[in-house]
Amino acid sequence: MIKKIEHLGIAVNNLDEAIPLYEKLLQTTCYKTESVSSEGVNTAFFQIGEAKIELLEANNLNSPIAKFLSKRGEGFHHVAFEVDDIEEELARLQKLDFILLHLSPKEGADNKRIAFLHPKSTMGMLIELCQDNISKS
Amino acid sequence: MIKKIEHLGIAVNNLDEAIPLYEKLLQTTCYKTESVSSEGVNTAFFQIGEAKIELLEANNLNSPIAKFLSKRGEGFHHVAFEVDDIEEELARLQKLDFILLHLSPKEGADNKRIAFLHPKSTMGMLIELCQDNISKS
Repeated sequence: MIKKIEHLGIAVNNLDEAIPLYEKLLQTTCYKTESVSSEGVNTAFFQIGEAKIELLEANNLNSPIAKFLSKRGEGFHHVAFEVDDIEEELARLQKLDFILLHLSPKEGADNKRIAFLHPKSTMGMLIELCQDNISKS
Repeated sequence: MIKKIEHLGIAVNNLDEAIPLYEKLLQTTCYKTESVSSEGVNTAFFQIGEAKIELLEANNLNSPIAKFLSKRGEGFHHVAFEVDDIEEELARLQKLDFILLHLSPKEGADNKRIAFLHPKSTMGMLIELCQDNISKS
């Protein structure tokens, strides 16, 4: 079951520029930065209500974010929905003909298990499902 | 002050297709549809935690959503942040050199007063500020 918007992922060229800009915009301090080497990204997090804003910067030229930025430019990259049971949710959505980019969850930033749905099956939205590692039942 | 993500706006070609798809995806019923003739859009709303998903369909060929769809295709259109005082927030952001698409709020969908920031000043994100009409002080 989908519980809430966990975060919005925004692709940016340069975190050193984007972090202070988003701190001014949102009037809140970036509370964490994290590198996810398996994804080739550096991330920066801001809390807004129950959700987060996650800025994403490529940390190498072959990273999916680098490719996204060269094709689409800066801006919205994905939305993540928090689920209570990610395996169950992936199975449910696959049965409904949503296209899964990951058939089973992988480790993501922010101590979460994550999986993505293909935008082709969601009206153009790259959607991440995520579940806290600690909340895994 | 920005309080939370109020909604995500997603541009779609056809609400008749998108509404049942998002009902399956989110496991929740579209609780409202609304046409905003001044914007040339038909909208459909879903509640997810404290935020909403707003699907946006063009209702005429000159609508900004029609232009967006022909240029970018379906997908993320904007994110709306709820603020407690929209005039104050617009003044604050203008002083910080964010580019306002509306210098003062206008009437939007869902009984809100709204204003947009230009994506050029926000790393490519079209950002709406919104305030409930009833909460205007």
